[in-house]
Amino acid sequence: MTDRHAPGGPGPEPAGGPPPGALPGETTGRLLAIPLPALPDVRPGDDLAALIADALRAGASSDPDLAPRPGDVLVVTQKIVSKAEGRIVDLRSVEPRQEAVAFAARWNRDPRQVEVVLRESARIVRMERGVIVSRTAHGYVCANAGVDASNTDIPDLVTLLPEDPDRSAREIRARLADLVGVELAVIVADSFGRPWRWGITDVALGVAGFAPLADFRGLTDTTGRELHATVVAVADEICSAAELASGKTSRRPVVLVRGAPLPAGDGSVVRDVVMPEAFDLFP
Amino acid sequence: MTDRHAPGGPGPEPAGGPPPGALPGETTGRLLAIPLPALPDVRPGDDLAALIADALRAGASSDPDLAPRPGDVLVVTQKIVSKAEGRIVDLRSVEPRQEAVAFAARWNRDPRQVEVVLRESARIVRMERGVIVSRTAHGYVCANAGVDASNTDIPDLVTLLPEDPDRSAREIRARLADLVGVELAVIVADSFGRPWRWGITDVALGVAGFAPLADFRGLTDTTGRELHATVVAVADEICSAAELASGKTSRRPVVLVRGAPLPAGDGSVVRDVVMPEAFDLFP
Repeated sequence: MTDRHAPGGPGPEPAGGPPPGALPGETTGRLLAIPLPALPDVRPGDDLAALIADALRAGASSDPDLAPRPGDVLVVTQKIVSKAEGRIVDLRSVEPRQEAVAFAARWNRDPRQVEVVLRESARIVRMERGVIVSRTAHGYVCANAGVDASNTDIPDLVTLLPEDPDRSAREIRARLADLVGVELAVIVADSFGRPWRWGITDVALGVAGFAPLADFRGLTDTTGRELHATVVAVADEICSAAELASGKTSRRPVVLVRGAPLPAGDGSVVRDVVMPEAFDLFP
Repeated sequence: MTDRHAPGGPGPEPAGGPPPGALPGETTGRLLAIPLPALPDVRPGDDLAALIADALRAGASSDPDLAPRPGDVLVVTQKIVSKAEGRIVDLRSVEPRQEAVAFAARWNRDPRQVEVVLRESARIVRMERGVIVSRTAHGYVCANAGVDASNTDIPDLVTLLPEDPDRSAREIRARLADLVGVELAVIVADSFGRPWRWGITDVALGVAGFAPLADFRGLTDTTGRELHATVVAVADEICSAAELASGKTSRRPVVLVRGAPLPAGDGSVVRDVVMPEAFDLFP
């Protein structure tokens, strides 16, 4: 009855109708998230799915729960996807525009990095107090357009988001099916801040093998009462669970999640989760 | 290096210095979330901790993993906390102001419920297209000020958020320690929408027994490289994991989460996670 959904829009119903995402299944009642063993440093052109398959095999030899099963999700950190896809910019080759120089000087940032953020931004949402929040060409609204310098070996290298993270997820999923013999769901995840609350949480940039939203609207519970008029961001919640299991102080960029209630369908974060600007109350 | 944190503010550093939350521990590398068996309907004045303790005992008799251990977190749905605390309003006693009548008529909502939302709002953030996003007296920014009609037995009853969800969590934690003999961390959780993305995720309204943010700023990883300049919203991520385990189509309002990296300290969502208005880029 009460409308508890997105403060960013009038409701979870995009222009074309309700978000895809099929009828959500009942949860298995037990969620498990286990990081895979550390991967080697990922470099452009690497067969990331093969590295993940190796890590799965190595992990399963000491922890039987890491033997993948249908219904499992692999949550893969954006950083290694971007590296494998060569989405890397050497700041030494970047000529910052005047706006980037001025903003960087005022807020003690690297003007070349600010320049790359501006290039990756389809539209600036906020650019003040040292923070750049923008909408990327994919439609994600996040800090610094996802441009990230941390955890790269060379300080002058920054990673960009994958060109099409849903496609990245689909490619990893297809290749893993060949290598591992199991059709696993795949999420490409990144850490986003949010308004009004301190701290980042991990969310999905791309998905494959399931629908990222579970639509409970109109369903009744076992006693016949209507449930929350709710669309649950299942893929984003899975990313949060994975982040807790992997931790930030270790290099475990892939996490296996078992027992999540995956909505059936072939979903896409860009199509299903990203809110079109027409619905955006915080442009 | 790169600043990936909150798009809602210039950085995760509130006025009084860095957010509390101590040095985060390394994760155990295995996150488990299991819902407790269904609780009976909760009514005002009920001893909620006793109901939870009963459910824990009943659950542990068939699933040994539900025997609580130090380091475990119990995630408790706001709805049953509000009910136990009598935070219920009968809409039949509510006289809507003219603004509520007009908004409700235009957007096909219950004017009395809109009235309660306005009463629970310290400041309106957006009130358009049928959506009310506001800042509550606690400081949470969310849809409908947390006023919720669904899942109550009588359609005319709505629940309000607890007066002080951090206090609610502390009280449940203290009473559970007596009843169960283990000091468990406790979170009071609710489902919030967010700007720019469809779908809700569960977040923490109140915590007890740990700090809700993990501050990794300045830490280096095992190879000596600096980590993300990152503050992780651990409590919110735990709520997301719990939501996946509980599911919306069943009545399992309490979930046990094991293996989350709980930052040491006595935290508070209102003090540590809620971003003061001075830092808010989306007022």
